[in-house]
Amino acid sequence: MADIDLSALTEEVVSRFDSTPDARLRRVMQALVRHLHAFARDVELTEAEWFKAIEFLTATGQTCTPTRQEFILLSDVLGLSMLTVGLNGSKPAGCTEPTVFGPFYVADAPAYGDGEDVANGAPGTPCTVRGTVRSRDGAPIANARIEVWQADDEGQYDVQKQGLEHAQARGVLHSRHDGGFHFRTIVAEPYPIPTDGPVGTLLGHTRRSPWRPAHLHFRISAPGYQTLVTHVFRAGDEHLGTDPVFGVRESLIAEWPRQADGSHRLDFDFVLNPDA
Amino acid sequence: MADIDLSALTEEVVSRFDSTPDARLRRVMQALVRHLHAFARDVELTEAEWFKAIEFLTATGQTCTPTRQEFILLSDVLGLSMLTVGLNGSKPAGCTEPTVFGPFYVADAPAYGDGEDVANGAPGTPCTVRGTVRSRDGAPIANARIEVWQADDEGQYDVQKQGLEHAQARGVLHSRHDGGFHFRTIVAEPYPIPTDGPVGTLLGHTRRSPWRPAHLHFRISAPGYQTLVTHVFRAGDEHLGTDPVFGVRESLIAEWPRQADGSHRLDFDFVLNPDA
Repeated sequence: MADIDLSALTEEVVSRFDSTPDARLRRVMQALVRHLHAFARDVELTEAEWFKAIEFLTATGQTCTPTRQEFILLSDVLGLSMLTVGLNGSKPAGCTEPTVFGPFYVADAPAYGDGEDVANGAPGTPCTVRGTVRSRDGAPIANARIEVWQADDEGQYDVQKQGLEHAQARGVLHSRHDGGFHFRTIVAEPYPIPTDGPVGTLLGHTRRSPWRPAHLHFRISAPGYQTLVTHVFRAGDEHLGTDPVFGVRESLIAEWPRQADGSHRLDFDFVLNPDA
Repeated sequence: MADIDLSALTEEVVSRFDSTPDARLRRVMQALVRHLHAFARDVELTEAEWFKAIEFLTATGQTCTPTRQEFILLSDVLGLSMLTVGLNGSKPAGCTEPTVFGPFYVADAPAYGDGEDVANGAPGTPCTVRGTVRSRDGAPIANARIEVWQADDEGQYDVQKQGLEHAQARGVLHSRHDGGFHFRTIVAEPYPIPTDGPVGTLLGHTRRSPWRPAHLHFRISAPGYQTLVTHVFRAGDEHLGTDPVFGVRESLIAEWPRQADGSHRLDFDFVLNPDA
């Protein structure tokens, strides 16, 4: 027992994790303590600021529901989500780049057959999406699981809509034997991330735009390949340079040309990385 | 608009806070981003670990209630609370040292007169507390507001007790014109911090003791003086060296001698620092 000198406090806290049986948990917690303390010392955190942070984190947790994940949104706007993707998603040239997962994925979306309409009544301008799923060597990947989800032209995902009981603009497809796929949906439009919670308050106080550039989410998985989580963005979108979640990658921006009948069309091919 | 290179991502996120009108908020957020990203890069955070962290923080927020603050508890066990106290509480020699606030303070505790019993039915061995409140120059401080709170001998604060509708072992007193004060209560005993929430799970996985050494909380405020938040600990307590919240300071440990009638007695004087 001894008085804890403030200058020695950080190493005292670190040492209390020395008996953690799981070596990885020990390393993560000890690094967390060192970086967290370095932050507080760097800014000379005041007690009033500390308490505001406690209140902010509490409100963030209490804003989460089964269909809303405010802590993922917080991670997104701090760039931590995209950094984590980058730290884990380094892939060889030629593979499709990953981007952030986002807070609106649903694991058990309805299944659709090739060519079907996943919009399922979501308001928006019709759009046809075609593409292929291939391995890095160009070989087609048959029966890849292709999960897609997006906001409608009112800027909302189905899970954000009060009283909507079924999935809209969200579905699961599988690639054909030639690796190709094809589905109908609505065209992606820009939308603001939710601004009615603590993260929206933070964006307001820091004068950051909540508008995400238009995008269509993909999660593509197949046995023997690393699962790909990504978006496809629309060329020319005015919000591409200020995406609040830092998800834009040049290689994920595509043309979505308008067709003679007023609908749009997106052609985009995906390349998966084989498991190590 | 440009592709965000992963190596440049951190500075891109930092730059998005450049337009924050409040200079202090801008500094805090930019430092937070740099330290948070440094942590993720340092440990090469995996996506599975990131998601566990999201779940942990969400559960921590959802464990909070009007009478339970799991985020303060998390800050306490990571040493952040004590670090913040230390960064702000540096006082001249002779002043009573501050320590952590803890999650069980209640702002509107009942008022008691000098010599009254704040236990108010809380189970435990009777204890009489006497002391004085003085300025750094030794002058008595009359009418200082003295808030006290503590756990009972079952290890629980009143706000943790199901169905208890009134305050126990918690009250507000005022010093006399000579700076003295005197109240009756129960003797402080060691107790474990709550282990049924996310913070308890963390302590379990890291094999850390949840037992706090016995202590009595004080918050003492008076016009013209810095408010003092501190505890008084009991000499000889076996948990003084492993306090899970890092609150022990040598100068805050006192004898609580047993009296002939079986009750205990604590004498402790407090010295407040005048406002700058």
